[in-house]
Amino acid sequence: MNKRLKVAVIGGGSSYTPELIEGFILNHNELPVTEIWLVDIPEGRHKLQIVGFLAQRMVAKSGLPITVHLTLNRRDALEDANFVTTQMRVGLLQARIWDETIPLKYGVIGQETTGPGGMMKALRTIPALLDIARDMEALCPDAWMLNFTNPAGMVTEAINKHSRIKAIGLCNAPLGIYKWLMEMFDVPSDRIYAEFVGLNHLHWVTQVSVDGESRLEEMMNGDGYSAINVPQSSWNASLIRALGAIPSYYLKYFYLQKEMLQDQIETSAKEGTRAEVVKKLEDELFELYKDPNLSEKPGQLELRGGAYYSEAAVRLMKSLYNDTRDIQTLNVPNGGILDFLPKDACIEVNCIVTKQGPIPMAVTRVPQAVQGLIHAVKTYEQLTIEAAVSGKRELALLALAHHPLVPSANVAEPMLDEMLEINRAYLPKFYPEKE
Amino acid sequence: MNKRLKVAVIGGGSSYTPELIEGFILNHNELPVTEIWLVDIPEGRHKLQIVGFLAQRMVAKSGLPITVHLTLNRRDALEDANFVTTQMRVGLLQARIWDETIPLKYGVIGQETTGPGGMMKALRTIPALLDIARDMEALCPDAWMLNFTNPAGMVTEAINKHSRIKAIGLCNAPLGIYKWLMEMFDVPSDRIYAEFVGLNHLHWVTQVSVDGESRLEEMMNGDGYSAINVPQSSWNASLIRALGAIPSYYLKYFYLQKEMLQDQIETSAKEGTRAEVVKKLEDELFELYKDPNLSEKPGQLELRGGAYYSEAAVRLMKSLYNDTRDIQTLNVPNGGILDFLPKDACIEVNCIVTKQGPIPMAVTRVPQAVQGLIHAVKTYEQLTIEAAVSGKRELALLALAHHPLVPSANVAEPMLDEMLEINRAYLPKFYPEKE
Amino acid sequence: MNKRLKVAVIGGGSSYTPELIEGFILNHNELPVTEIWLVDIPEGRHKLQIVGFLAQRMVAKSGLPITVHLTLNRRDALEDANFVTTQMRVGLLQARIWDETIPLKYGVIGQETTGPGGMMKALRTIPALLDIARDMEALCPDAWMLNFTNPAGMVTEAINKHSRIKAIGLCNAPLGIYKWLMEMFDVPSDRIYAEFVGLNHLHWVTQVSVDGESRLEEMMNGDGYSAINVPQSSWNASLIRALGAIPSYYLKYFYLQKEMLQDQIETSAKEGTRAEVVKKLEDELFELYKDPNLSEKPGQLELRGGAYYSEAAVRLMKSLYNDTRDIQTLNVPNGGILDFLPKDACIEVNCIVTKQGPIPMAVTRVPQAVQGLIHAVKTYEQLTIEAAVSGKRELALLALAHHPLVPSANVAEPMLDEMLEINRAYLPKFYPEKE
Amino acid sequence: MNKRLKVAVIGGGSSYTPELIEGFILNHNELPVTEIWLVDIPEGRHKLQIVGFLAQRMVAKSGLPITVHLTLNRRDALEDANFVTTQMRVGLLQARIWDETIPLKYGVIGQETTGPGGMMKALRTIPALLDIARDMEALCPDAWMLNFTNPAGMVTEAINKHSRIKAIGLCNAPLGIYKWLMEMFDVPSDRIYAEFVGLNHLHWVTQVSVDGESRLEEMMNGDGYSAINVPQSSWNASLIRALGAIPSYYLKYFYLQKEMLQDQIETSAKEGTRAEVVKKLEDELFELYKDPNLSEKPGQLELRGGAYYSEAAVRLMKSLYNDTRDIQTLNVPNGGILDFLPKDACIEVNCIVTKQGPIPMAVTRVPQAVQGLIHAVKTYEQLTIEAAVSGKRELALLALAHHPLVPSANVAEPMLDEMLEINRAYLPKFYPEKE
Repeated sequence: MNKRLKVAVIGGGSSYTPELIEGFILNHNELPVTEIWLVDIPEGRHKLQIVGFLAQRMVAKSGLPITVHLTLNRRDALEDANFVTTQMRVGLLQARIWDETIPLKYGVIGQETTGPGGMMKALRTIPALLDIARDMEALCPDAWMLNFTNPAGMVTEAINKHSRIKAIGLCNAPLGIYKWLMEMFDVPSDRIYAEFVGLNHLHWVTQVSVDGESRLEEMMNGDGYSAINVPQSSWNASLIRALGAIPSYYLKYFYLQKEMLQDQIETSAKEGTRAEVVKKLEDELFELYKDPNLSEKPGQLELRGGAYYSEAAVRLMKSLYNDTRDIQTLNVPNGGILDFLPKDACIEVNCIVTKQGPIPMAVTRVPQAVQGLIHAVKTYEQLTIEAAVSGKRELALLALAHHPLVPSANVAEPMLDEMLEINRAYLPKFYPEKE
Repeated sequence: MNKRLKVAVIGGGSSYTPELIEGFILNHNELPVTEIWLVDIPEGRHKLQIVGFLAQRMVAKSGLPITVHLTLNRRDALEDANFVTTQMRVGLLQARIWDETIPLKYGVIGQETTGPGGMMKALRTIPALLDIARDMEALCPDAWMLNFTNPAGMVTEAINKHSRIKAIGLCNAPLGIYKWLMEMFDVPSDRIYAEFVGLNHLHWVTQVSVDGESRLEEMMNGDGYSAINVPQSSWNASLIRALGAIPSYYLKYFYLQKEMLQDQIETSAKEGTRAEVVKKLEDELFELYKDPNLSEKPGQLELRGGAYYSEAAVRLMKSLYNDTRDIQTLNVPNGGILDFLPKDACIEVNCIVTKQGPIPMAVTRVPQAVQGLIHAVKTYEQLTIEAAVSGKRELALLALAHHPLVPSANVAEPMLDEMLEINRAYLPKFYPEKE
Repeated sequence: MNKRLKVAVIGGGSSYTPELIEGFILNHNELPVTEIWLVDIPEGRHKLQIVGFLAQRMVAKSGLPITVHLTLNRRDALEDANFVTTQMRVGLLQARIWDETIPLKYGVIGQETTGPGGMMKALRTIPALLDIARDMEALCPDAWMLNFTNPAGMVTEAINKHSRIKAIGLCNAPLGIYKWLMEMFDVPSDRIYAEFVGLNHLHWVTQVSVDGESRLEEMMNGDGYSAINVPQSSWNASLIRALGAIPSYYLKYFYLQKEMLQDQIETSAKEGTRAEVVKKLEDELFELYKDPNLSEKPGQLELRGGAYYSEAAVRLMKSLYNDTRDIQTLNVPNGGILDFLPKDACIEVNCIVTKQGPIPMAVTRVPQAVQGLIHAVKTYEQLTIEAAVSGKRELALLALAHHPLVPSANVAEPMLDEMLEINRAYLPKFYPEKE
Repeated sequence: MNKRLKVAVIGGGSSYTPELIEGFILNHNELPVTEIWLVDIPEGRHKLQIVGFLAQRMVAKSGLPITVHLTLNRRDALEDANFVTTQMRVGLLQARIWDETIPLKYGVIGQETTGPGGMMKALRTIPALLDIARDMEALCPDAWMLNFTNPAGMVTEAINKHSRIKAIGLCNAPLGIYKWLMEMFDVPSDRIYAEFVGLNHLHWVTQVSVDGESRLEEMMNGDGYSAINVPQSSWNASLIRALGAIPSYYLKYFYLQKEMLQDQIETSAKEGTRAEVVKKLEDELFELYKDPNLSEKPGQLELRGGAYYSEAAVRLMKSLYNDTRDIQTLNVPNGGILDFLPKDACIEVNCIVTKQGPIPMAVTRVPQAVQGLIHAVKTYEQLTIEAAVSGKRELALLALAHHPLVPSANVAEPMLDEMLEINRAYLPKFYPEKE
């Protein structure tokens, strides 16, 4: 089986890359990748080399017939690719620091995937991803784009709406839930079934069964699930019981907005934002990566918070490649699954992954209580996407003024202006004269 | 035309009653009411008499063949009634004071028609109104219930869902908008057309035309509309322009939540809540009403904040009675008008009023930005209605925890418990052993 | 009031025109038309002159300040028009004869507004109307197109989907129903309310009230309503009672398909098709029109079958012009009124006519029994529209094979081919080399 | 693994039973059935014994720890059952003969699962199945009902709407399609994926892939698929190509109505109806079954037309039992999968089978051309179900008059009356005095 199977990794210089490489090595039997192209922007050349050389050492050690290419020329990487993964950060960690800290000054949660921070990240990222999609339309129109660039839901929806490229959004959170359930019930993943309903970073697990028997009731103890990369405020146990569903840990930003804001303000004062923590972790990782004797993924990578990203990506590629028709939780166009959202809205639900793409499964229950919140956040997402594509400040203002975490249009407006201005270099649609 | 035409006024001892009586007198030509039954609860006997005697003096002065009956026996009032109006306040102004002040202690807006205050009012009111609907099913099953008891949207939805009575919710706000437009454009009402989209106390005017020509654009100056019974925070002009629609003044609680909360806290400290202001006004009104020489509606009633309520009610009765097929803005079941809400959700939109009832008109535009907020508030309303009917605390908690004005489930829970406890006497569904 | 008010009448040489002129004369007070432009194609020059000179004599007699222009230059007629009415017949009565006779050879009903005949008429007409719409986009982009060219529902949907022109479809059938009800109940039209549900030539009257009191039950006697231009087969009384609604007389083609087909075959043998009858009537009318002493609409026009067309058109123009906000039954985009049809499907329902256009009213009841039939015919209509626009034979075949009156795809295919071939000269999209 | 696993087979005396028994024997490893209860009505005692003894011989030969019980007491069979299969024929083959012959007299297709015949079968069967469901609610409320009693779609919808029992409808047709595809592409079933859209006996295969590569285009040759139990009229090749989908062989009744009717009339004259053919086959089968030396399923059973029924049933039970989460084509409530049908309408689509039940998958494409036909037939089905439950003749008339195969209400009415009358003994809801 000498067939060419080419994967382009956009943002190849990311600290996550070694995990992805490990995934390709471990799954080579079922996903016989022949070429991996790590591509990054000129500013990332140094990191690309560090990570790329490590990737080459890892592959060499494996003895597999895979070649790892490093390039700053995106078109070379995309040409005839079968899969394109995207893990980029427009504006680098500096922009994330803005996303997380500026809102705090206005008494608003600073978070890189929702609220004002998530909006700014979307405004920076969507045009960049659409540029890649344009290139793909020309160079590899049938390739799958596996997008795990955050805010993954908005980015995936934008690509599906504004390009002809088939994009699937994926997130490590559902996989994390499965890992947690595996540990809790001490069974392998394939004996567990969890139903996810909602949007990226805004989902609820409305059904959990082990060997087909429902176990949700016994889980309604209010501890919920908290991943290591989200601050630890306990859940409100009465709320969880009343919901009869397990909220994503990101839902703490909504259900415990007050406490989370307080926590962010305190943590930020003490130890800096999550972005600053991550920056430090990344610097340490890159120091490790440089070691010419290192030829495997270092354990410290797991502290980085992106656990399972690579696992999710490789699993999805395997299923698309092999027409596996297994169930995965993905970000896909709604169709009619959630009947109160537009058909082209991107949602996060269980899908059957066929070679023709993921097919969403019906959701057996959407708790009445959560429909309004899902719709409110989706409204913000739609407005943000259109703002990103059009560069219209008024759409960005509408998005913010209607976001559940923003307490006033009078707060939204100056906050928006400050954030737009500081991000100016990354927002050519908003500042076209700067192009 | 000696046909009997009987109107039952539930909560007949209300300070609003003289306005209603005036309406019947002025419109007798087109709405030849023969009997008005003012009914109240025993605790309201004193007020009923004061108001009732004034009503009798007003009718006597008019010389019209109308009889005004005062009674504490609701069944007498309802028997064979053609129209039933409801303007009650379970728990009286004391309960309103709770609704408006307890949330403030938790840093949440205290308002009698939305948020925690609106929920408590709904929990007290819905069972009482359903009791009346049960009586109507037996005594006047074909009568129209004109409900202007707040929260009018929830109450009307509850009656339409949980009884066989035909209920229409009405509010003075749309009429107020028309009065404001009449003044602004200096034309009579019938040359103006305004399209309303949304829910009770959560609507947007998305179209304004005068003589059929659109005038909305020139109105997008950000001053918006503020009625005298809502505190005066200016609108955010950029928001209004971006919306391309005029938000209801109640939307300040959402769009300017932070400022409105601050304002409530300050005003409450200085001059008491709106409830306390109203209580004072009402006491003064009742002093006036006692004057045996008074035989017309006193001008001071307009300060009370309920301007146009009577006008709205009489106009609606006239159209139902005469099959007028004119356009009125009413609270009716959604059908498919707003496609993202359930068909049985109560919405506030323009309707054609026929003798068979109001028929909603399609809305020509629902601004994308507002759909999520409408859905979020409707979710809270649905949960509140089911909580009121079932007496389930967990539904009330879900309602609050998902309300856009409540910043945390951990805030919602103790606030809810305090409010339930203090309202105990009015919540037999929640405290059944007390029945 | 010297304001210019220009009406362009496309197909001005039609035998209907005198009725339209009479309408403008009678309603000049409320609709002060200043210019009427009668325009026709070169082949219609002779008829245009006969009708046009009559129109000029009628206007002269009226003494009103209206000018009547005759032209073969459509662009002159359209320039700055306020209203454009369309009453054209691509292929003239000859094509109608094909529509009505060829299907009979295949054992299929031959009818000019549905089934194979209706499809052929749509295929000929839609491109011609879209051409006019293109001219209007350039010459009078804000004008209203009042389309009463059949099949009016499909044509109107095509224009609304494929141009930027505001088109309203109208039909004389609803007005005919009102006339019939006026006679039956002996009351003027404004005391009657009838609710229409469905599509053009496929509607049901689901509610009839007089002075607001429902009278539908007493009408369920099975006689239904039959206009003079539709063959007289009696209705099935049990069906009508079971429906609880009055079907349009066109529904006989569906509910009594077998009898109607038999009737067509017999009538066609005896006296020719309806088209041939009409041709004879028209010839007689034009003989009358030529009389230079005639300066009013001759009574014989009513036999022609288009009674009330002009009344419907002038009434609609009056309401659009004066922002009357009265209720008219029109063909407009569905929005969400019928929730099982696409939002852009054209439906025939009651609307409020404002200067900004008609706003459909919610329907209070859609009998469950008729939903599938409405959807089946709408499917045929959608496919036909796309066939007309694209010239794709396979879409026309799909349309026919799924039409409820066509008993087999093996019947549909040769019938389609024969009809396409004979209509070749009028189907440039299907026969592009002929262009 | 000594756990009890009980299956009740309603209509156990059916000629299909040996196939089912064979299925249980072959799959015992994964579906360790311990008890099989064959139950039938007193009139079927003789057949039950013949079939039951064969079943016992088959099980004995297998040496597996399964007991086979024969009973006329349904409650014994149902008590604590895990699965209940239903394969009954109210009125026996005689009624089927009526279903297939009476319509022919009226020039209407006689078919036991759609049109007038299907309606009568539904009217006889639904109340009988609902009786069983009532027993199940009391005796085995958590059991799965696997319904393959025709008309399976209507029966399953009726049970899901009018009882609390979890019913799944299944049909051998999708499995037959898979067998045909396996042969055509010479690959095992698990390398094929076919997407089904529609209703029971009214589906289209809109996607076929082998190893994930689409093969639909090459199949658009017009031969379609014909099973041995449906008369052989060739498909119309142009239609198939235009559809871009493979219609179920039952769709010949709709797409080739004329030819199928002609064929039925001729066949009926020559060789009797399908019912009569089946009756003869069954008599022969029962002769074989009586042979005390026979202890396996005779090959002749495949001529009976129910091939794969047992395979479908056992496969479904295995997946429910083992939480297999594989894809099967089943009849389940619509949810929002087909957005133009009610949520509680039963549709036939691909589902993931979990222990909690089947979860429908989104359909990736619903050909526009078929939506109206699906809706038209579903309308007939809904009306038929309500007629069956209520015994209202007018609903049955509406169902027939709106069925695409019935050419006139005037045909429908006498045909209905004749069919009701002859079925009188099996229609207690319609003839309550006979109860």
